[in-house]
Amino acid sequence: MKITPTSGGVCAAKGFQAAGMHIGIRNNTSKKDLSLIYSEVPAHAAAVYTTNLVKGAPLVVTKRHLADGIAQAVLCNSGNANTCNADGIDIAEEMSCLAARELGLDPHDVVVASTGVIGQPLNMAPIRAHMGELAARLEHSEAASDAAAQGIMTTDTVKKEFAVRFELGGKVCTLGGIGKGSGMIHPNMATMLVFLTTDAAISADLLHRALSHDVRKTFNMLSVDGDTSTNDMVVLLANGLAGNDEVTDPRSPEFAVFMKALNTITVQLCRSIAGDGEGATKLLECRVSGANSPDVACVAAKSVITSSLVKAAMFGADANWGRVLCALGYGGADLDVDAIDVSFVSRAGRVEVCKDGAGIPFSEELAKQVLSETEIEIAVRLGDGDYGATAWGCDLTYDYVKINGDYRT
Amino acid sequence: MKITPTSGGVCAAKGFQAAGMHIGIRNNTSKKDLSLIYSEVPAHAAAVYTTNLVKGAPLVVTKRHLADGIAQAVLCNSGNANTCNADGIDIAEEMSCLAARELGLDPHDVVVASTGVIGQPLNMAPIRAHMGELAARLEHSEAASDAAAQGIMTTDTVKKEFAVRFELGGKVCTLGGIGKGSGMIHPNMATMLVFLTTDAAISADLLHRALSHDVRKTFNMLSVDGDTSTNDMVVLLANGLAGNDEVTDPRSPEFAVFMKALNTITVQLCRSIAGDGEGATKLLECRVSGANSPDVACVAAKSVITSSLVKAAMFGADANWGRVLCALGYGGADLDVDAIDVSFVSRAGRVEVCKDGAGIPFSEELAKQVLSETEIEIAVRLGDGDYGATAWGCDLTYDYVKINGDYRT
Repeated sequence: MKITPTSGGVCAAKGFQAAGMHIGIRNNTSKKDLSLIYSEVPAHAAAVYTTNLVKGAPLVVTKRHLADGIAQAVLCNSGNANTCNADGIDIAEEMSCLAARELGLDPHDVVVASTGVIGQPLNMAPIRAHMGELAARLEHSEAASDAAAQGIMTTDTVKKEFAVRFELGGKVCTLGGIGKGSGMIHPNMATMLVFLTTDAAISADLLHRALSHDVRKTFNMLSVDGDTSTNDMVVLLANGLAGNDEVTDPRSPEFAVFMKALNTITVQLCRSIAGDGEGATKLLECRVSGANSPDVACVAAKSVITSSLVKAAMFGADANWGRVLCALGYGGADLDVDAIDVSFVSRAGRVEVCKDGAGIPFSEELAKQVLSETEIEIAVRLGDGDYGATAWGCDLTYDYVKINGDYRT
Repeated sequence: MKITPTSGGVCAAKGFQAAGMHIGIRNNTSKKDLSLIYSEVPAHAAAVYTTNLVKGAPLVVTKRHLADGIAQAVLCNSGNANTCNADGIDIAEEMSCLAARELGLDPHDVVVASTGVIGQPLNMAPIRAHMGELAARLEHSEAASDAAAQGIMTTDTVKKEFAVRFELGGKVCTLGGIGKGSGMIHPNMATMLVFLTTDAAISADLLHRALSHDVRKTFNMLSVDGDTSTNDMVVLLANGLAGNDEVTDPRSPEFAVFMKALNTITVQLCRSIAGDGEGATKLLECRVSGANSPDVACVAAKSVITSSLVKAAMFGADANWGRVLCALGYGGADLDVDAIDVSFVSRAGRVEVCKDGAGIPFSEELAKQVLSETEIEIAVRLGDGDYGATAWGCDLTYDYVKINGDYRT
């Protein structure tokens, strides 16, 4: 099973075009704020959404549009979440209609998404004024994917864009995607905004199955600040243009390859979103092993990655492992506290700090070196069980507070 | 039912003595770090403890000691949590024995508590060396309560000490307490360290009932950082020296008065601990009304107060109410999102920002004034239900990150 990295993000797969441009949804910036993704033919579409009871209007509309499992375009603005607005549904519907008209599609084949401030009316004037230009800019190119990736960013400081190639039944297939963080990230069943495209032919049923299964191990294991957004959404479009025989059997080797390719991209997106969390200086990865159930492993890994105190300690390169134990203890998983081992790992080395639930002597100097790197693994062994899980997060920094103390202005 | 504030904290009630002094548990400070509370006669004792699976050794020992519902002294050190140490239980037992020997008590009548860094061996030498002096300093005085309150503080910046007088069966009774925060505060079933003393005569059974009931509405509704500590404990001692007829009937007016007096102190402690949360500049109080069950009200209030994004917005005096809606939406309570009203309230006024789940126009200038105060109420009306709840927290600031980025040094 060979999965090879490639370039082109959301345009890497055959038949997908993209565009992104600045239209002025927020006044005080020249950042790109509207993106469009287009498949030259109708695509099978699967999506997962936030579990927050407060749902952005675009999610409500998209859910309706994807009821038939088919979509051909994604329109997404940044700068305004179109959430908690009395006219939100009308606005989201109008966005779909504008895109559909330019692309000659049925509005029900348009996925619509928004990200930004909650509860401020979304001004449609710039979207109406620029939709034609945006559609005219659609291209199947690396530059186009780049523009679309930029158009969906909010407080992100780096673009999130990945793609891989793989083979299904002798045909080269491609899967790529773009994503955005970087605050209000604590997905549950879905996450922030991620748009994935593939030219693999796969049934709508299996596409949904692949995505639902994958997000449990990826985006649902990601936390920047513990706040589950109102607008989280992951959409996966598969247009079949690679020409492989449609994957329809969940037990086939082809489905396994597809799942692996999908997971390669989603893990890269998770790491990228976590490492670029608001104000973050470090990517944290908590790897739990030795759990006696998958659930215990997941709950434990996520509890560690979510702890404000662990996050602040990592910012300070402080090997305060007691906070890791504390987070494991309150996470809700049934654990044998006296069997827990903890190590910190990075490019600078590995330092064991806790064995069988109690501290062991370690070199503070080595610990400082290990924790001063920008990617840190918190390795937790719970006992002799067979299950493991990985969760991703970031440190808690002055800049997180700064960014979120005055986000609206 | 008249409840009158008074002074003297943990020494306000008859027959209680206290002391606190610096003995050098942490080297780099001259802060008081060992406190003792003593009742001249055996007292009924009730306690609640953290739900964290990782429990400090002092909690394990105290739980054993309180199995008979009787205690006569509390010994507490700050600077080291005596948690996740291989010899923790032995250390905690030795602390009890040292105090018991000085006071002529059975070690089982000593409550022992520790707070500070997890996973570093607690050096008993200074405790052994100074226990005699600490016991010799015991006094029934305001100064003594003050010293004890200081001795249990860690990153607290203000002392938490309150007391009230009330009447039971014609006798004047007193209840007072001391507490400490101010990080790792997200209690569940108990909280940080709080020691309460009263001279009211009340059965061991009702004392436990009163405390268990009260913490659900007070300390369990308090969050500084979402991290449930390993060492949280609330202890309530009642020595009966007020001379009232022992309260034994949960339906009696006397029990109601006692509950009210207790709640007066615990709410004051909650507000004080929240307002002095690590790095905090503001006390946040979320008052939920109109819920259709007590649980919904509690979950909603606590979710708002726990949100990092809400906390950062309050730090920045930013009326970003969308984050309040977001936190209500993911909190787990079953809500009608379209019925939610939100206002911000402080001494500077009241500003309504959300009505029926959607934003309404408001004066940003007034909002800024309201949110620039040091005590802010986030008022949430969920609908037409009969239930309400209050939760306490604080803003998320640069200083929280600073304090926790390098706590151990």
